[in-house]
Amino acid sequence: MTADFTTLAEFQALLAAAPSADQKALGEAQERNSQLTKPPGALGRLEDLAIWYGSWRGTGRPAIEAPQVIVFAGNHGVTAQGVSAFPAEVTEQMVLNFQHGGAAINQLAKAAGATLDVVALELDTPTADFTQTAAMSEAEVVVALAAGWSAVNVQSDLLVVGEMGIGNTTSAAAIANTLYGGDAADWVGRGTGVDDAGLANKARVVAEGVALHGTPQGLDALRTLGGRELAAMAGAIARARSLSIPVIMDGFICTAAAATLQSAAAGALDHVVAGHVSAEAAHGAVLAQLGKEPLLSLGMRLGEGSGAAVAINILKSAVACHSGMATFAEAGVSDG
Amino acid sequence: MTADFTTLAEFQALLAAAPSADQKALGEAQERNSQLTKPPGALGRLEDLAIWYGSWRGTGRPAIEAPQVIVFAGNHGVTAQGVSAFPAEVTEQMVLNFQHGGAAINQLAKAAGATLDVVALELDTPTADFTQTAAMSEAEVVVALAAGWSAVNVQSDLLVVGEMGIGNTTSAAAIANTLYGGDAADWVGRGTGVDDAGLANKARVVAEGVALHGTPQGLDALRTLGGRELAAMAGAIARARSLSIPVIMDGFICTAAAATLQSAAAGALDHVVAGHVSAEAAHGAVLAQLGKEPLLSLGMRLGEGSGAAVAINILKSAVACHSGMATFAEAGVSDG
Repeated sequence: MTADFTTLAEFQALLAAAPSADQKALGEAQERNSQLTKPPGALGRLEDLAIWYGSWRGTGRPAIEAPQVIVFAGNHGVTAQGVSAFPAEVTEQMVLNFQHGGAAINQLAKAAGATLDVVALELDTPTADFTQTAAMSEAEVVVALAAGWSAVNVQSDLLVVGEMGIGNTTSAAAIANTLYGGDAADWVGRGTGVDDAGLANKARVVAEGVALHGTPQGLDALRTLGGRELAAMAGAIARARSLSIPVIMDGFICTAAAATLQSAAAGALDHVVAGHVSAEAAHGAVLAQLGKEPLLSLGMRLGEGSGAAVAINILKSAVACHSGMATFAEAGVSDG
Repeated sequence: MTADFTTLAEFQALLAAAPSADQKALGEAQERNSQLTKPPGALGRLEDLAIWYGSWRGTGRPAIEAPQVIVFAGNHGVTAQGVSAFPAEVTEQMVLNFQHGGAAINQLAKAAGATLDVVALELDTPTADFTQTAAMSEAEVVVALAAGWSAVNVQSDLLVVGEMGIGNTTSAAAIANTLYGGDAADWVGRGTGVDDAGLANKARVVAEGVALHGTPQGLDALRTLGGRELAAMAGAIARARSLSIPVIMDGFICTAAAATLQSAAAGALDHVVAGHVSAEAAHGAVLAQLGKEPLLSLGMRLGEGSGAAVAINILKSAVACHSGMATFAEAGVSDG
């Protein structure tokens, strides 16, 4: 597997040089939308979604035929701090479950007509405990970014990235705290189910990590406080941008990983929509920082790309209407 | 087409005698849910939905294989009061558009894997202007209820009902006002796009209608203020209940029609979930009166069953997880 970068500086340069939406296709999609047999605006956000999707795919009449879901898995040294209700070996057990088709994301990807790829990232080598030292060296984070970059199928037309990694809500909370400030307690949540004491412990761990690394921003936040699966998600989201493939973000951890891209290069998430807002306490606040309004709010908090996979159906519905409906002229319907 | 009733009293008796959810299946579905490879509750509302669906289908491990969408169309004498931004002939034009596959609901039903049936209800004979007299006689409303009742495919396993009828947001607002009180202005909205003067006119029309008929409740609200397509939706929802087929409600008009069933017989909507909350101003308030939390909030306001059709995908995703996931024991995953 090779990527188009070998250092963080090169990756950052790729972010800065990423393509924008196609303005001609945007105009064509807007024009088509205005002619469809419905009152103006009556499909609500479905109209905005279809136009946005077409603008990234370079056509006023797009189709979604090849969505890809990728789940990245990684282990976290910070679990030594007792931050999770589940033992670290569950990461690997769940990878096997993904591979055998038994997890939620398997069912959800299938229901959405998406392919599913599972990428386990050096599960035998957890990242370092970020309360002691940087989670990853530059070489390590570049390898993880490259794993995500390379996992994107260039033939896909929609990407969802998800994760599995015991301890990774703590990593995500630390990233949110370093990027957006406030108290550590504002950014931690119950993850897979810690109690009140566990929640206080997570806040301590986050505060220590952010202080130790000096409130890092951008890709340094990803390197010092992140994890391999967070870096891989960021790499995949950046690769999708380079290919003009729209992305649906999943929950808190995915969104924190994406937020480091936005911190590194403003506009880096213009090709991204928020699939849902999860029950993890701080997810809504991170989405607000990114200016992303979630498509779904179903109280989900599983990760794996699960919320975004459900949202694939919303985007497919939007595009199906946009590209399949008759115009007023075609249907002979009076347009008010 | 025959139904199992010939009077409103007989229909009301059927509502009162409707089956309940299967308590044994409910328990089995709850038990299965607790064993699936995810933290407890991590799929949020998807878990509740799957358990609820299984309880109505009589199995702890259900599947959704045959969803049906039915769109009913009717014309309204109250359009003589100038309540719509579109001319009344658009109802029939849109029926042709449905039949030719060009409307939003055609694309959305297909995207959700649902069949679509279109039932036009005496379009050449609008209901009476409810500011002058009852919209329908008892015989007329029974015929419309029966049309809905008979349109349900007994082999389907999920039902969405939608509507097309220029003027029918006014009818729905009048039903909401008579059932729930308050001012007429609280219940009217912009429908397909009336201006401020149009909105004030709709409030006048609603207030006149409710006053003329003496704040009717239950099926009398449907008869005096409703329309043929509203009665047909109510009939179909009741027929689904008699067959233990769960229903996803659509927007304001569908919900107002359903509300007359709840007014006629408490619990008549226990087999119904709210697919979405629309942009029509009073829809959320009617849902709150019914105690139904919507699955989606996408600013849609098209009718046709469109919002509920999108929500089919949510319910299918929920059931796919519930019935397809491995248990902790099957997958060899530690359960915390």
